[in-house]
Amino acid sequence: MSVGEKPLPRAERRRRTEGRILGAARDLFAEVGFERTTIRAVARAAEVDPALVMQYFGNKQELFQQAVRVTPAAPTGLDAEEVVEHLLGTLNVKMGELPQGSLAMMRSMLTHPEAAASARRTLGEQIDRLALSLPGEDARLRAALMTMILVGVTVGHQLLELDELRGVSQEEIARALRPALRALGGPEVS
Amino acid sequence: MSVGEKPLPRAERRRRTEGRILGAARDLFAEVGFERTTIRAVARAAEVDPALVMQYFGNKQELFQQAVRVTPAAPTGLDAEEVVEHLLGTLNVKMGELPQGSLAMMRSMLTHPEAAASARRTLGEQIDRLALSLPGEDARLRAALMTMILVGVTVGHQLLELDELRGVSQEEIARALRPALRALGGPEVS
Repeated sequence: MSVGEKPLPRAERRRRTEGRILGAARDLFAEVGFERTTIRAVARAAEVDPALVMQYFGNKQELFQQAVRVTPAAPTGLDAEEVVEHLLGTLNVKMGELPQGSLAMMRSMLTHPEAAASARRTLGEQIDRLALSLPGEDARLRAALMTMILVGVTVGHQLLELDELRGVSQEEIARALRPALRALGGPEVS
Repeated sequence: MSVGEKPLPRAERRRRTEGRILGAARDLFAEVGFERTTIRAVARAAEVDPALVMQYFGNKQELFQQAVRVTPAAPTGLDAEEVVEHLLGTLNVKMGELPQGSLAMMRSMLTHPEAAASARRTLGEQIDRLALSLPGEDARLRAALMTMILVGVTVGHQLLELDELRGVSQEEIARALRPALRALGGPEVS
């Protein structure tokens, strides 16, 4: 039975339209930043009516929030060692080709309060998940440091394009960074 | 002999005027970002003629470059252990009150190509200095990772104001981060 035989269910149609809007939003936010992206331009790129974008997402900040939520979420139930490898894995993903959502968030988070609020929420959720996998009383602090280390290295590699990071392979970066993340993954050193 | 007895030497007068211009530029870049800062506004804040700003600094990008160059430079001749403590020290400085120059650079570096170019130069110089203190063939890579870790943590604490970092003391952050930086400061782990 092919998809063409009967019309898609309403929920599936909506899911696809939302996906198209989010894709268009992600590209525009990444390209021109939060401030210069308009609901109208997103609607045009997604080939829908602007009113539909508002109906689905409410406002530009909510659209931004949804659009940047694409970083692969840390699975729960990992131990500290597995968390380090998961983070190094996302780094490889980011270095190969930074997802448009992350790019959009990072480009805008330091200059626009709404984008900063979204970044705070998205990073906060990641920190919560990571902290579940870390031992010790200061697990949330160490999860936050691990998260910001990844952000910092990604900014240096992908947005600032530092020679020292562009000139080496992803494997070399992971190998150099692994002991540092492991040091944060262990129980508190007193 | 008081300063008032005779006019200041020309070089000293110029040094003071340059300092006043840089201070005004730093405040404006930090407050409104690269794009919206004008030579005219800097001149007005420093109480000098715009032509003088151009004569001393050439253009806005050069002015930006000079204005953000205030992060305390890593002294040379340190060993790897001392480098870690120096970096943790600058983190404390940044967390207490981020210097306006660093704030200006970080706010603008992801959205404006000229600011990104300046950040690349400034961070590159810091990486060069740090690498001199680190052993191993990949000293520059590890110096770059240490530098971007500090940038990432500072962004999380100072610009995004993550709860997990704001809710703890600078000493706790330094204690949690120290083993990670030490892991990067040592010779290559094979």
